[in-house]
Amino acid sequence: MKPLLFAMSGNEDFTGRLIAALGAEPGSLETRRFPDGETYVRLASDVEGRSTAFVCTLDRPNDKTLPLLFAAHAARDLGASRVGLVAPYLGYMRQDKRFRPGEAITSSAFGRLLSSSFDWIVTVDPHLHRRTSMAEVYAIPVAVCHAAPKLSAWIREHAPNALVIGPDVESEQWVSAVAAYAGVPFVTLEKTRRGDREVEIKFPDLGGWRSRMPVLVDDIISSGRTMEVAIRHLSELGYPAVMCLGVHGLFADDAFKRLEAAGASSIACTNTVPHRSSAIDVSDIVATAISSLGP
Amino acid sequence: MKPLLFAMSGNEDFTGRLIAALGAEPGSLETRRFPDGETYVRLASDVEGRSTAFVCTLDRPNDKTLPLLFAAHAARDLGASRVGLVAPYLGYMRQDKRFRPGEAITSSAFGRLLSSSFDWIVTVDPHLHRRTSMAEVYAIPVAVCHAAPKLSAWIREHAPNALVIGPDVESEQWVSAVAAYAGVPFVTLEKTRRGDREVEIKFPDLGGWRSRMPVLVDDIISSGRTMEVAIRHLSELGYPAVMCLGVHGLFADDAFKRLEAAGASSIACTNTVPHRSSAIDVSDIVATAISSLGP
Repeated sequence: MKPLLFAMSGNEDFTGRLIAALGAEPGSLETRRFPDGETYVRLASDVEGRSTAFVCTLDRPNDKTLPLLFAAHAARDLGASRVGLVAPYLGYMRQDKRFRPGEAITSSAFGRLLSSSFDWIVTVDPHLHRRTSMAEVYAIPVAVCHAAPKLSAWIREHAPNALVIGPDVESEQWVSAVAAYAGVPFVTLEKTRRGDREVEIKFPDLGGWRSRMPVLVDDIISSGRTMEVAIRHLSELGYPAVMCLGVHGLFADDAFKRLEAAGASSIACTNTVPHRSSAIDVSDIVATAISSLGP
Repeated sequence: MKPLLFAMSGNEDFTGRLIAALGAEPGSLETRRFPDGETYVRLASDVEGRSTAFVCTLDRPNDKTLPLLFAAHAARDLGASRVGLVAPYLGYMRQDKRFRPGEAITSSAFGRLLSSSFDWIVTVDPHLHRRTSMAEVYAIPVAVCHAAPKLSAWIREHAPNALVIGPDVESEQWVSAVAAYAGVPFVTLEKTRRGDREVEIKFPDLGGWRSRMPVLVDDIISSGRTMEVAIRHLSELGYPAVMCLGVHGLFADDAFKRLEAAGASSIACTNTVPHRSSAIDVSDIVATAISSLGP
């Protein structure tokens, strides 16, 4: 499929790469904010009878969602044959059960919302925690791209002597795959979370890996607390350099600065969330996933 | 109906007044923002089998809508018998047609969104421009409260010698009602809009109303440009004091300051949008509308 691709605000770079990879046509989208805080949306390209898709990464989703839904609604209203969503990062995947009575299961609510507006979604490594499949959350086809091989390639190139370190035992399967593709060993930490911003971690014995370069990996770097604590511990153990690698670099608040201050020698993420650390391009695998959805 | 009333963040004062007026029970709602910008929502009161409603005024709606929809989704999920929305100000009413090809008709899209999450809505003076009824936009019952009598009462008390001035000829019916209830004369301006922030206005002959106090009225004070221009003109004509009255005081950007700087002697709005000018309480008419929706 070669949909007409519209970039929601802030997604111009990633959209340009997808258009190049797919040989697709760029859609022209006009948005602006009225003085009263409402958003104006206009599809300046004709969508009638066309397969269309909107590219909108959904970190910090509260403010982005309404304009995105309006654009989708307009495309449908104007006769688009299909309306897809390319969300390199898909938000609201974390709260997937009720931990305390009365909690909103926001992953279900957000899934219902997007499913009612789009025909399909393409995303990269959604944070499936207690769910085993996107079909439990989304009523529409969701094509999932896996960035692990991209992280492995990055490690082979930039840290061939790596020791890959995963954040917790739950991540072991994914971390072992990243390490295996890169041809390097791995270990995982034991993590206990004590609130939104506080974590406690326990290291395994690193005695056998003194000569390797620690590479901390995670699917999402949000508060960065786990990595921050791990970097300080590794520095204390005498490791001269520590690399941080993430699929989605959210860098909540001052997380990026704190990782640098803790002593990270380099920090790299994929470009699912635009940031100056977005060095690992995944647009090609996203383009492949879009193609796989058929005409 | 006496629903269990939950205040979305920022709506505590209005909700408290509704609870007092209705003799309703307050619902306890917990919301907070995660470091990554997503919102946590928890209904700490049991809603099972209960008629519930959320109070959320919808100025600056982009950031407020997702948490509101999540709260509604949770109430439904937890077995609430009915889920209502009290939106003293209802956003996204202005773009109700396509002025240029490709425009999103956001009033329809927003209406569809809210209609799919709530069983009913109560609001105050929605900005129905080209539409004649809320039923054209909303698929659920919408009870509309009219603030005109409240503005009239304010004029009777604070400006018994008023000349009510409406912003444009389209507003004449509403402005004449405000003036009639107050027992004072009215005129309307002729307005030409030149973009989001620029307006040009034409005054009728005010020769017969030299001894009266001009009271500029409007349903929404957003950029405040019309009122600003009008105040300056009235000052030039020698009027010593000019009052500004609005139903919904949005005060985009620095609008409030600009109106003061232009020479407004007093600015008052209803409390549909919390602001230091929200002097005119309309919670009683909103409570009456909620009661009218039946059990």
